Amino acid sequence: MEIKQIQEVVDNWIKKYTGGYWKPNNMMLRLIEEVGELAREVNHKYGEKPPKPEEKDKDIGDEAADVLFTLICLVNSLDIDLEESFKKVIKKYEERDANRHH
Amino acid sequence: MEIKQIQEVVDNWIKKYTGGYWKPNNMMLRLIEEVGELAREVNHKYGEKPPKPEEKDKDIGDEAADVLFTLICLVNSLDIDLEESFKKVIKKYEERDANRHH
Amino acid sequence: MEIKQIQEVVDNWIKKYTGGYWKPNNMMLRLIEEVGELAREVNHKYGEKPPKPEEKDKDIGDEAADVLFTLICLVNSLDIDLEESFKKVIKKYEERDANRHH
Amino acid sequence: MEIKQIQEVVDNWIKKYTGGYWKPNNMMLRLIEEVGELAREVNHKYGEKPPKPEEKDKDIGDEAADVLFTLICLVNSLDIDLEESFKKVIKKYEERDANRHH
Repeated sequence: MEIKQIQEVVDNWIKKYTGGYWKPNNMMLRLIEEVGELAREVNHKYGEKPPKPEEKDKDIGDEAADVLFTLICLVNSLDIDLEESFKKVIKKYEERDANRHH
Repeated sequence: MEIKQIQEVVDNWIKKYTGGYWKPNNMMLRLIEEVGELAREVNHKYGEKPPKPEEKDKDIGDEAADVLFTLICLVNSLDIDLEESFKKVIKKYEERDANRHH
Repeated sequence: MEIKQIQEVVDNWIKKYTGGYWKPNNMMLRLIEEVGELAREVNHKYGEKPPKPEEKDKDIGDEAADVLFTLICLVNSLDIDLEESFKKVIKKYEERDANRHH
Repeated sequence: MEIKQIQEVVDNWIKKYTGGYWKPNNMMLRLIEEVGELAREVNHKYGEKPPKPEEKDKDIGDEAADVLFTLICLVNSLDIDLEESFKKVIKKYEERDANRHH
């Protein structure tokens, strides 16, 4: 599945089920909420936080996908091509670290 | 209530009800989780996120106090005097902004 | 130093140096930024992230105080008495855990 | 670019330039740091936070890609297939919201 396709799937979902994208600041708050849920699961499995009795054990992959979904909502709403941004960032890392190690 | 007292209240709670402070990294994950819950409430009240039917409307003050509690756990575990750090920070802000505005 | 005094010190600083409190959503974004900086320092000292050569080693206490400052800005802007909220939360924890352990 | 390819590109980068993946808790702290930087840029552009004079204006797409990169590091280290998780999550959303709207 291409990143572009993921951006489209999310866009279709937003159009079908919601009144449209939220403002970037509000979308960002949602992202924090999802990142907090991912942190909880990581802490349950690899840290010292036992789940509360009423908390179902959730899957880290599911929580990571929720974070991805929310991140895509944010970039979609700002017309950002995430593949292009990713390529730019990996190029930046490669250049930085090639210099650092030689 | 003094910050010092708050640090003591939290310390007593930790000693009474838990096996001791968590490692800083795990405490930090818990802080993110609490910050995520605060973000959710702020988004419910001032953003565009309607609460899910099964979510109770929580109090922003309560969520902020949960964040404070978790922050105190972290600093307690590292023997940090938060009042001293706060005074240092406010002094830094004052100096920075006094220079910026004159 | 009382929490009430801290709330006043922050309020005075806001009145003296800024155009007033930000909207809760924007204040919340600032809180995330500060929490991210605290996470970075915790990761430097207790995790696996070495500081970049150009990054100064910052103090975890200072970063925690920045988080506290920003949290106080948020609660001040919403007229929340953080001491009252803290007492409510600690009471809730005590009741929950007293029941859990007997 | 497929998500799978992105996971591979990140894996190659990790193998080439680092000593291996960090522990999940430490990777999660790094994710918070990146999310905090994204929050800062969103606040600069859409909130009330003016950039400090010494801060360069960064690109929201770049910051979002940094978040994606870090998220991929986390899932890679846990052998999670993010495409599979994403498909599961979108299916869950579709089912939930199909029921909610009819």
